Amino acid sequence: MGSQGRFISFEGMDGCGKSTQARLLAERLKADGHDVVLTREPGGSAGAEDIRRLLVEGNPGRWSPETEILLFTAARRDHMERLIAPALERGAIVITDRFADSTRVYQGAARADLRDVVDALHQMMIGQEPDMTIVLDMEAGDALQRGLARRSGEDRFEDMGLPFQERLRRGFQELVRDNPKRCRLISANGSETEIAGRIDETVGSVFA
Amino acid sequence: MGSQGRFISFEGMDGCGKSTQARLLAERLKADGHDVVLTREPGGSAGAEDIRRLLVEGNPGRWSPETEILLFTAARRDHMERLIAPALERGAIVITDRFADSTRVYQGAARADLRDVVDALHQMMIGQEPDMTIVLDMEAGDALQRGLARRSGEDRFEDMGLPFQERLRRGFQELVRDNPKRCRLISANGSETEIAGRIDETVGSVFA
Repeated sequence: MGSQGRFISFEGMDGCGKSTQARLLAERLKADGHDVVLTREPGGSAGAEDIRRLLVEGNPGRWSPETEILLFTAARRDHMERLIAPALERGAIVITDRFADSTRVYQGAARADLRDVVDALHQMMIGQEPDMTIVLDMEAGDALQRGLARRSGEDRFEDMGLPFQERLRRGFQELVRDNPKRCRLISANGSETEIAGRIDETVGSVFA
Repeated sequence: MGSQGRFISFEGMDGCGKSTQARLLAERLKADGHDVVLTREPGGSAGAEDIRRLLVEGNPGRWSPETEILLFTAARRDHMERLIAPALERGAIVITDRFADSTRVYQGAARADLRDVVDALHQMMIGQEPDMTIVLDMEAGDALQRGLARRSGEDRFEDMGLPFQERLRRGFQELVRDNPKRCRLISANGSETEIAGRIDETVGSVFA
């Protein structure tokens, strides 16, 4: 799939403020006159939202890690085909709340031996990476508390507990170390405005 | 996944009488004192049935062939882990109405260029083949008419029309030619009893 626009993803644990910051960035870029598409994973297109419900509802053992990877990849393929690729082709800025890195890090935290399967599926069925990935970082316990506080009925991953959240945090930090050109680690401590300021500085360099 | 029992699949176009014949064979083997598990795809386990609904409902263009392959493979992985593998390990005879050959033939009829993707996904995520595959064969027009006559709300594939059904028939015939040890082509013309008699003869050789 070709890419003419700009593709930015937000990553991090649930509760780190990703969704808010993705929305704030989209609003600022729209105000500057850009064609912006704000989306999220799992979901983002009609079919992928249907798959999302299978993934985020139900008990933690509902799916094996292998089945889960296949469902995330199916949702991502639909999202890419029906929303992201057409938007990039017309030159839009696509901002997504989560993308393939979430599958890598969440599955890495659950079952490290499946990392090769995740990578092989991504290469075969998706192929594309964002131009820039903003990783929001905070204490695992704080993120877990904020994620659980809003109990949305979509708590399958938060229900896996604090040790899992701590593996997630390390996983996202390693992702940034391993992909220094694409990924930026940004502190999610402070007010929304302070965090938005850090993100603006980082993104500004891409659109300068 | 280990296999100690016997694993038999039924394949063919919708409307060819697969489901009826799978049930009749299961009943005969049970009457003979065998531990028999009768199942179907897509579906067969709780999670896979949830995925089934995404696959068989909605309009023909709901999913791209690529997304569809991922969803079928996710459903099959769940079915294999939660139902088929445990049953085979305890020594049961598992009879399934459709398995991986359906994905090969249906996707081959829709998008021949994706056959390598189907095979790669099967090898990576499933791995196992049935011990014996019964392929029921009849005129494409007759099968389509019978499939549509029962309008079940699960008509996404029948809605693709007669030329598609004819490619399916050829696909199943080629499958048998390419896998002569595992697959048997059996005429689905005649009464239920006549067809059941042909299947008994074929299966009898396995359990002799």
